[in-house]
Amino acid sequence: MNYQNGINLWNKAKRLIPGGTQLLSKRVERFAPEKWPCYYKKAKGVEIWDIDGNKYIDMTIMGVGACSLGYADDDVNQAVKQVIEEGTMTTLNVPEEVELAELLIKLHPWAGGVRFARTGGEAMAIAVRIARAWSKKDKIAFCGYHGWHDWYIASNLANDSNLDGHLLDGLEPNGVPRSLINSAIPFEYNNIEKLESIITNNNDIGVIVVETIRHSEPKDNFLKKIREIANEIGAALIFDEITIGWRLAIGGAHLVYGVNPDIAVFAKTMSNGYPMAAIIGRESVMDAAQTSFISSAYWTERIGPVAAITTINKMQKVQLPSHLDNIGSLIGNGWKALAEKHNINIEVLPPKPLVTFSFKDWENVQEINTLFTQEMLKRGFLAGTSVYLSLCHTEEVISLYLKSVDESFEIIKKALDDGNILKYLEGPPAMAGFKRLT
Amino acid sequence: MNYQNGINLWNKAKRLIPGGTQLLSKRVERFAPEKWPCYYKKAKGVEIWDIDGNKYIDMTIMGVGACSLGYADDDVNQAVKQVIEEGTMTTLNVPEEVELAELLIKLHPWAGGVRFARTGGEAMAIAVRIARAWSKKDKIAFCGYHGWHDWYIASNLANDSNLDGHLLDGLEPNGVPRSLINSAIPFEYNNIEKLESIITNNNDIGVIVVETIRHSEPKDNFLKKIREIANEIGAALIFDEITIGWRLAIGGAHLVYGVNPDIAVFAKTMSNGYPMAAIIGRESVMDAAQTSFISSAYWTERIGPVAAITTINKMQKVQLPSHLDNIGSLIGNGWKALAEKHNINIEVLPPKPLVTFSFKDWENVQEINTLFTQEMLKRGFLAGTSVYLSLCHTEEVISLYLKSVDESFEIIKKALDDGNILKYLEGPPAMAGFKRLT
Repeated sequence: MNYQNGINLWNKAKRLIPGGTQLLSKRVERFAPEKWPCYYKKAKGVEIWDIDGNKYIDMTIMGVGACSLGYADDDVNQAVKQVIEEGTMTTLNVPEEVELAELLIKLHPWAGGVRFARTGGEAMAIAVRIARAWSKKDKIAFCGYHGWHDWYIASNLANDSNLDGHLLDGLEPNGVPRSLINSAIPFEYNNIEKLESIITNNNDIGVIVVETIRHSEPKDNFLKKIREIANEIGAALIFDEITIGWRLAIGGAHLVYGVNPDIAVFAKTMSNGYPMAAIIGRESVMDAAQTSFISSAYWTERIGPVAAITTINKMQKVQLPSHLDNIGSLIGNGWKALAEKHNINIEVLPPKPLVTFSFKDWENVQEINTLFTQEMLKRGFLAGTSVYLSLCHTEEVISLYLKSVDESFEIIKKALDDGNILKYLEGPPAMAGFKRLT
Repeated sequence: MNYQNGINLWNKAKRLIPGGTQLLSKRVERFAPEKWPCYYKKAKGVEIWDIDGNKYIDMTIMGVGACSLGYADDDVNQAVKQVIEEGTMTTLNVPEEVELAELLIKLHPWAGGVRFARTGGEAMAIAVRIARAWSKKDKIAFCGYHGWHDWYIASNLANDSNLDGHLLDGLEPNGVPRSLINSAIPFEYNNIEKLESIITNNNDIGVIVVETIRHSEPKDNFLKKIREIANEIGAALIFDEITIGWRLAIGGAHLVYGVNPDIAVFAKTMSNGYPMAAIIGRESVMDAAQTSFISSAYWTERIGPVAAITTINKMQKVQLPSHLDNIGSLIGNGWKALAEKHNINIEVLPPKPLVTFSFKDWENVQEINTLFTQEMLKRGFLAGTSVYLSLCHTEEVISLYLKSVDESFEIIKKALDDGNILKYLEGPPAMAGFKRLT
């Protein structure tokens, strides 16, 4: 197959693969339709070469947050290539999974047991299975985004906007069994009253699931209060650390906030892009995994644990969280200064390792976001309004980036003054949420 | 961490990882407790070196059937190492997944759409989600083993022996929501009357799931009759090809039997041990995937598709199914001849690529199986009563193997004549099914 012309290949992909790709966040239509470079040939550090030979610096999602050491990290790759030579899947077990279990428990002394998986969604489904088996109660109260599995999407059976505002809007629950209706009830981050009212109205909540933090800091002891509620009602508390884990601290973000869950789930960042996920938990809770059948062949391969051990050790050595904090500040402050310079109204959101801003001057946010992406692409950057930072986002990279943001903001200001963003777009505006592709 | 002494490491693992490992079939207790070499350091072809430095030839499950080209295949490894250099996970998409989608559809002309995952269990859960979304009916009739997910284990909610006989006995449904009771109803392979009675008693069956074949040939047009029933009631028919796919034909075993499902699911064999799974389906059925949120970050990494393309091309080039058929005959006939020589009663079961036998002279089959494994270990073989064959299982390997089977059968005959197998065991007998480990 001759890979050439990203847009043509994407149009072909949409005929063969429903939705074009396996991850909503990698759809071309979410960035700048007809402009986004779709497919890559090579990536290293923060640089990425598309299949048409163009080179970009990635200031967007860095492999959806999976590559916190940068693309194709030499140390992790070296360790992985070594075990590839030695065989990565056999009839016997992989010693490195015991080492990794030990390392994760050392970093999280409250935990006493570990299970592994290979993707984030299935890891959350395992956590929920163990939590339900332990509490012996099926119903779930949750906050945030937790993937594609039935237990989560079921919450849209009762009301198909239940999940709106939890990262992705319009998630359709087709194919989720109707009998799961009302089995998962959402509450908003920092809205402890809503959780309390869920508990009051449902005496069978056995599991509480939250993203430790996403784009709001916990206020008024939010996490601590959830912990207390879980204790009171005998529910298992799960912290989903898939997105935020390893960025604020070496381990879960809950280490920073001093609140321990019963189960914490890690995936993306822990192995720098190699499929890996871990479910860690209090010993007595994890023991419930022995009373439920949870087993899959590929969870026993060797690359995942080896990549994770190497990545975690390197994140520790380079003190990744403090680097991400510094760079996140640089970017956030840079955006603010440039917005002020061009008299554009923006809001900058935490956390710094996935620093985010939003344009406030224009109602149709997809139009203005697309214009930003379009202008940054012309200047050699994959860019949107959110950046997953990595070790390879250096001060030098940020300084180049902000120069291009300066130029792009100038054009945006002109479009805003014109009162017509569409006029400046060279393709259709991006699509938000979950929509059918044609 | 200093890896030494497999048994000690296994005992440590059982304290850190509930169940000791992520796959039931890799538990030491299922083979020869206290004797099985637990952990490996290196594997190549059919050879495997444990962490204590002992070398074995693998005549058991070959990475649970994942490594049909043999361990650490040079061609697949070379392709994988190349893309590791070029980055395996980025913000942009992987062109190879379009190539793989095209290849799978070329091999299965009835299919028009493909989705990818990374583990078999989650791939089956995706297939079921798509099938339910398409048929708009939630209830499932199934046959065979299909993994750990709620939709499958739910069948044990009504009767905890429902899944017995479908590969693994005693699967406990703890942590599966009670509201899923009666949502999945089992029938036995080749028992079309049972499926018909399920259909008669349930007007809302939307999905029929079967392993195309396991250890029985389809009789009396079993697969064709299921296809007709699915058509009549408007149910989606899913063939689980995770275990048998690529062994009888390049693609699904259904290609041999001339019956096409609506969805076929592949995983283990397709990528020679690198995590990868594919869900292929008729265009109109797969289109339902666009109406349901099915999305996960690691499904977009690059190793899986690259390993799959290389593996499939090599399986084609070497005509793997015909090699497996030859070698499976050699082994099956060898077992029969040696059993006859030693006056032991055994039964040999198809299919040849995972040729299997069972001892018929002794009621407690775990005792006699353990004795066989124990004696074969002493002779340098990982061995049980079932062999997943690979390209590296050559006639020469089989001839060495049968020599050791000869010696082991002689000892077994002596134990049988003694009427006491336990006396000959140097450790406890193996555990069957799903049991708590301590």
